[in-house]
Amino acid sequence: MLLLGLDAGGTSTRATLVTSDGTCVGFGTGAGGNPISSGPELAASGILTAIEAALAPSGSSLSDVGIIISAMAGSTAKSSYDWLLDPLRSRGFDGRVRFMSDLLATYFSGAFSSFGYAIVSGTGAAVIRVEDGEVAGTSDGLGWLLGDDGSGFWIGHHVAKAATADLDGRGPRTAVTGLLLDQLGIAPDGTRDAGRPSELGTLITKLYDMRPVHLARFAPLAFAAHGDAVAEGILAEAGRLLAHSVEAVHTRPGPLVMGGSILAQPGALADAFASALRDRDIAPPEARVSDGAVGSAVLALREHGVTVDGTMHRRVSDSVAAAR
Amino acid sequence: MLLLGLDAGGTSTRATLVTSDGTCVGFGTGAGGNPISSGPELAASGILTAIEAALAPSGSSLSDVGIIISAMAGSTAKSSYDWLLDPLRSRGFDGRVRFMSDLLATYFSGAFSSFGYAIVSGTGAAVIRVEDGEVAGTSDGLGWLLGDDGSGFWIGHHVAKAATADLDGRGPRTAVTGLLLDQLGIAPDGTRDAGRPSELGTLITKLYDMRPVHLARFAPLAFAAHGDAVAEGILAEAGRLLAHSVEAVHTRPGPLVMGGSILAQPGALADAFASALRDRDIAPPEARVSDGAVGSAVLALREHGVTVDGTMHRRVSDSVAAAR
Repeated sequence: MLLLGLDAGGTSTRATLVTSDGTCVGFGTGAGGNPISSGPELAASGILTAIEAALAPSGSSLSDVGIIISAMAGSTAKSSYDWLLDPLRSRGFDGRVRFMSDLLATYFSGAFSSFGYAIVSGTGAAVIRVEDGEVAGTSDGLGWLLGDDGSGFWIGHHVAKAATADLDGRGPRTAVTGLLLDQLGIAPDGTRDAGRPSELGTLITKLYDMRPVHLARFAPLAFAAHGDAVAEGILAEAGRLLAHSVEAVHTRPGPLVMGGSILAQPGALADAFASALRDRDIAPPEARVSDGAVGSAVLALREHGVTVDGTMHRRVSDSVAAAR
Repeated sequence: MLLLGLDAGGTSTRATLVTSDGTCVGFGTGAGGNPISSGPELAASGILTAIEAALAPSGSSLSDVGIIISAMAGSTAKSSYDWLLDPLRSRGFDGRVRFMSDLLATYFSGAFSSFGYAIVSGTGAAVIRVEDGEVAGTSDGLGWLLGDDGSGFWIGHHVAKAATADLDGRGPRTAVTGLLLDQLGIAPDGTRDAGRPSELGTLITKLYDMRPVHLARFAPLAFAAHGDAVAEGILAEAGRLLAHSVEAVHTRPGPLVMGGSILAQPGALADAFASALRDRDIAPPEARVSDGAVGSAVLALREHGVTVDGTMHRRVSDSVAAAR
């Protein structure tokens, strides 16, 4: 029997096919597989593309697969999954599907212990505590308007606020202002409007024309403004907020797995995050992972009743790395 | 010749008709007159209703009016005003119209000096410096996403964030959580979801279903949570931010006029605002006004070349108060 892990993200999907000894025999990718961001039809199509690519090398079919773990954000017990179950059944799948948190797949991409923590900071940010291999505690992940403290959105939003406060005269001068105006193709012309530089009005119009969550695209400007006190302040605060979110679910020592682009970058954020964890007597992260491909397969193995120890976890990781 | 001041807000419009000695001879109200929030047709209709009511007591017509000052938010030199000019002309008006900042009308509702400051904190928040009777400096008013620090939106947003952080376990317990759940009709049932109270998910869904700017409706909860440390902290920070916005445009002593509902309420916000102004050696507000009705008429008098001194300012204020 084969086991299949799905790591269905907003922009891409990974399918990992393993045997019950943890050897990856196929890996495939597809378009975004989250029905909230892509809509159910496109999400199903992205997932099925990834599955077909994962089945191809071994010449397997969906009828050979006994368990599918689908890891995706926003899945709740109340959600309906017919949009995915129907096409799977019609393609010959007669096994079991379980929908789990994408953060759990992130966790098991970097750890095998059934107790530990995962933190992801990408566009959004969230932390989970894992107990007995399930999500036992969650911190943040509340979205751009209410939380996601220390995420790419949070940083990009603070970059936009720092630049507008600078031009407004309420905030200190900062290098991110010029970087932001450049990125948006706004050239200051030296004129003023009601006492403020005219480019402020242009900048505000452009920023309000965006979907708020897309302010995350300005997060790289904070990392690019080396040595700028305002940028470093934003990054350090983001690092402290992320550590605070870890602290909020931390009950006892366990491996901490990091995912997402924001914590992967060295500098003020990573330094502040590490230092704030030390202050709270929380051990530094044990692993950094790029996605939940390995973890979704580990979850499928666990669901099948396999005990995934360090040796098997390494076998999954190594064979997935070789297959992708 | 008669002079007409318009104070065209997002939800209502005031028209004030004065003679050239500053006596109000008519006052009328209409629906919201801002084309950005109401659309040009409804805005024109709201303004014309207010004007007709202001003309009625004296039996005047628009052909008797020489100058109209239209004070409204978001008016810029580049805006087109045909949506209002065309109906005014077709009703016999052949005088001059000038569009000015609503904050300038707020200022002249409370002061006659041609140099001074006005601060408004309602749903949004902004400060202007007035020189020679014109806007010479502006601070904030950048809208809910980028600024409006210390506004009703800012407070309501922080109430929503404090309540969700409380339920999430990242933030301290606060009385605003219960007040917010009550206001939204959410009853906690004691169940948990991924380690968090189930009402958190319901609350988040309801908050994201709102237009973000409508979070301003939760500002009163911060004022209602007497003695709650989190609520008082939000209000005190709002007061400090508003004082900071004043400081950003402050160059020399001058009267400070306050408008908007937020600064009108006694408590932690007003105390922090007053204390922060003191720390910056800025004189306390000289007047609190409810709108720009008096100020728009004062602007029309000034535009006509009338010197508005303290005596005339009082005549305008008293006669407007009697007429409305």
